[in-house]
Amino acid sequence: MAPLYLALLHFPVYDKNGHVVTTAITNMDIHDIARAGRTYGVRRFYVVTPVHALRALAARIIEHWETGWGATYNTTRKDALAIVTLTEDLERTIVDVERDAGAVPVLVVTSARTREPTLTYDELRRMIRADTRPLLLLFGTGWGLTEETIARADHRLPAVVGTGAYNHLSVRTAAAVILDRVCGQRHEEARP
Amino acid sequence: MAPLYLALLHFPVYDKNGHVVTTAITNMDIHDIARAGRTYGVRRFYVVTPVHALRALAARIIEHWETGWGATYNTTRKDALAIVTLTEDLERTIVDVERDAGAVPVLVVTSARTREPTLTYDELRRMIRADTRPLLLLFGTGWGLTEETIARADHRLPAVVGTGAYNHLSVRTAAAVILDRVCGQRHEEARP
Repeated sequence: MAPLYLALLHFPVYDKNGHVVTTAITNMDIHDIARAGRTYGVRRFYVVTPVHALRALAARIIEHWETGWGATYNTTRKDALAIVTLTEDLERTIVDVERDAGAVPVLVVTSARTREPTLTYDELRRMIRADTRPLLLLFGTGWGLTEETIARADHRLPAVVGTGAYNHLSVRTAAAVILDRVCGQRHEEARP
Repeated sequence: MAPLYLALLHFPVYDKNGHVVTTAITNMDIHDIARAGRTYGVRRFYVVTPVHALRALAARIIEHWETGWGATYNTTRKDALAIVTLTEDLERTIVDVERDAGAVPVLVVTSARTREPTLTYDELRRMIRADTRPLLLLFGTGWGLTEETIARADHRLPAVVGTGAYNHLSVRTAAAVILDRVCGQRHEEARP
């Protein structure tokens, strides 16, 4: 079983006009992706931003639910946030995964714009079950990961496609859908 | 192909102590589920609450993105919100589906607490592809749909299970995961 890590990049990502920007941290992204990560066995969920003040803000919010009043009010939230780690950039994120898992992770990117995927969801699913090398799944905020980040990844997953041409899921929901595709327990498989 | 409808109930649902309450409308639920609904071919996404003031508030937010300044700022959001319909209760929601689709919908509930499912995700997937009778998928806010609502449904889907015992997805992400399971284009299927 390959240990699975997730990272949500707030820089460098595109804005709606294709400019490279730093996006703000969204409280709801942290909560929802942490819950999904916890549900699907993700080891750590990295919230990546170079902005010190935003990391400090995120740390305060997490602390509230981890050890503050929120910890007793909502324990499932506390359990989810326990996997959240704040990092400055992709490099330091990769170093942290290596330190935790003992090997450099395979970098897998997901993007709504992917035109030439190198890996299907079923292949990634099999890879997680058969391999031991850690996997780092990268997600971009704003209008998505830059071409540069996509190019340096070891693998590109296909865009999540529904029933038509519209594929504008929020990053929160896209992350959960992808985790379900690669780690979700399929009812059919569970039958004797 | 069965026309698919979604409803998010804000009453009657449980709070964390098991009391039946009315929850507040969450802006992010509407946006995320509308985007997921639009992605997976949902005909209408009903936001159901008996509180007139909350329906009025939701209508104002939707109007901003539909015809106000937001409509030109973010067209993908506009397209998603076009499927949102505000209703007062489950009865009126069912009537609206019947009016739109020409038949009473099959009521399908999803719950993290489901112990005796009557339908697998693959069965629902086949049902959507083979049948023509409309389907109404019900989701509860707060701590979930009441036993009474669950009991009146025609079908119960299994709880979404990841890799362990933790299954506390937000309703936004659970809805997207379920839509992907029953309507998502599977890459493997698409291959020649």
